[in-house]
Amino acid sequence: MSDFDMIAAAAGRLDGHVRRTPLLTSPFLDDIAGRRVLVKPECLQHTGSFKFRGAWSAISALDPALRGRGVIAYSSGNHAQGVALAARLHDVPSVIVMPADAPALKIANTRALGAEVVLYDRGRESREEIGEALARDRGLTLIRPYDEPQVIAGQGTCGLEIAEQAAELGVTDAQVLVCCGGGGLTSGVALALERTAPALRVRPVEPQGFDDVTRSLASGRIERNAAESGGLCDAILTPAPGQLTFPILSRLCGPGLVVTEDEALRAMALAFLRLKIVIEPGGAVALAAALFHGDKLDGEAVIAVASGGNVDPAVFRMALDRLDAA
Amino acid sequence: MSDFDMIAAAAGRLDGHVRRTPLLTSPFLDDIAGRRVLVKPECLQHTGSFKFRGAWSAISALDPALRGRGVIAYSSGNHAQGVALAARLHDVPSVIVMPADAPALKIANTRALGAEVVLYDRGRESREEIGEALARDRGLTLIRPYDEPQVIAGQGTCGLEIAEQAAELGVTDAQVLVCCGGGGLTSGVALALERTAPALRVRPVEPQGFDDVTRSLASGRIERNAAESGGLCDAILTPAPGQLTFPILSRLCGPGLVVTEDEALRAMALAFLRLKIVIEPGGAVALAAALFHGDKLDGEAVIAVASGGNVDPAVFRMALDRLDAA
Repeated sequence: MSDFDMIAAAAGRLDGHVRRTPLLTSPFLDDIAGRRVLVKPECLQHTGSFKFRGAWSAISALDPALRGRGVIAYSSGNHAQGVALAARLHDVPSVIVMPADAPALKIANTRALGAEVVLYDRGRESREEIGEALARDRGLTLIRPYDEPQVIAGQGTCGLEIAEQAAELGVTDAQVLVCCGGGGLTSGVALALERTAPALRVRPVEPQGFDDVTRSLASGRIERNAAESGGLCDAILTPAPGQLTFPILSRLCGPGLVVTEDEALRAMALAFLRLKIVIEPGGAVALAAALFHGDKLDGEAVIAVASGGNVDPAVFRMALDRLDAA
Repeated sequence: MSDFDMIAAAAGRLDGHVRRTPLLTSPFLDDIAGRRVLVKPECLQHTGSFKFRGAWSAISALDPALRGRGVIAYSSGNHAQGVALAARLHDVPSVIVMPADAPALKIANTRALGAEVVLYDRGRESREEIGEALARDRGLTLIRPYDEPQVIAGQGTCGLEIAEQAAELGVTDAQVLVCCGGGGLTSGVALALERTAPALRVRPVEPQGFDDVTRSLASGRIERNAAESGGLCDAILTPAPGQLTFPILSRLCGPGLVVTEDEALRAMALAFLRLKIVIEPGGAVALAAALFHGDKLDGEAVIAVASGGNVDPAVFRMALDRLDAA
């Protein structure tokens, strides 16, 4: 099955379970960006991020007997919640391996969604090793956060919606900015758009200091980040682009864009004020690039995926402080 | 034309111009409410509230020659923004009469959307008299905020969407809670549901101290509020139910519900945390009733309209403070 056919099949399995998020606009954001801005608010997705799409896609694709034994995931938070809820709705157990320093809200939510949470030390331990050992011992199926074809296919359904919704709004000439960690969402959206709206070109967006994808696209080979944690954009801090996602990103995406944390916070504040949505720093980098890096973009319009909204109130207050200063 | 036919006609005129807002859910909110909770986030509508529906409906229904001379509205803010944007998109001038003590954000937004803003003193002057004099002098058409059939019809399109979306989610037995000021949205939604989903019964929700509709429904005649301003729920503070809306509310709605400001702030905080949407105090009273007054509700599910999201950061911080206390 081709990559696109896998996305189309995932869309069929997700139908009626995933939320079709709208495409939001505001004349105030258009004025700031100097072009039309369309925002795909995946923060409104179940569990507050796009991750539910990939989780549902992967779990729904499993052989029922295998699925019944349960699933396991390692995640800083959003993938964790997506897998936990998708597992619960399939009535199967889930184990989530999370860094002990993940936002308290994400750990609490994952537990409340019915998952067993196993914490690890991000500095000393490997989540991959812990996850694979638990999977082996208990017969659980590992749901990788991005380097997994069915997860990429699930995230790609966001791209199918973007293609349809942009066409409804008469947008044909635009770049599509995607908040990029391991590249699951970015590569899925790029694959979906390649077939359904080839004039919409994807650009990955990353926070300063964690620009592994941008550097990898520039050099043509997988580059790693110096740091693996730190900063506010926890949702999209991964060591390097994936083995499966990087070739897709290389083939289909334009150059990466890099924004500062302050720009991400200002984008969160403007999303609060103008779109009435709550986004987290890692989910705001694409909108930040759309609003504040227009000189690096082409096209009459820009589409920014706001990938998640699981933010602690203290961090949200930091964003609101940017409004008062403006 | 019947009331329902006017709503259906308004839906035709609004198609492609109004945003079809989704119907959001969270298992965490279900747990708090003790039943399924569905939230219709009209804060995601253009200009951040349902008011754009009624404004577009009324302006699009005007005779083109009359419309060309311009429109006028008096409003504490959300109707103002709705009329300003709908007028601009129809390429006609608008004048908005606003109380001088309306939230700064709403006044600034209304101006930025191209309207001429005329401020008045809520305690000493009558917005109706000012509006009618300006309308007469300049040949403007007055777009009343709720006691206007085409405005009620426009707000009713929100009810058409609720009926369709509730059916898609398999919800048949629910009360529909609507934040209620003058009753335009509440009566419009009630008229739409009467025909399309008669098992979904509307209940108006008001803030303590401004429960004119609740008392009017109980007594069977129009009752007025002692105060006409004050408090956080500025969006829904009106002196009394309308002459057109009250008979509709009387015929179609169940008893009113009254919530405290603290409950509205807690509902805002939970909408931030669980739905990733920004709602203002007046737009949060229905969700507050759904979450905290379940003992007064019937049905397996409750549908709450979150009617607007135009809230100043300082007030939003007050809501976030409720999360820290929880």
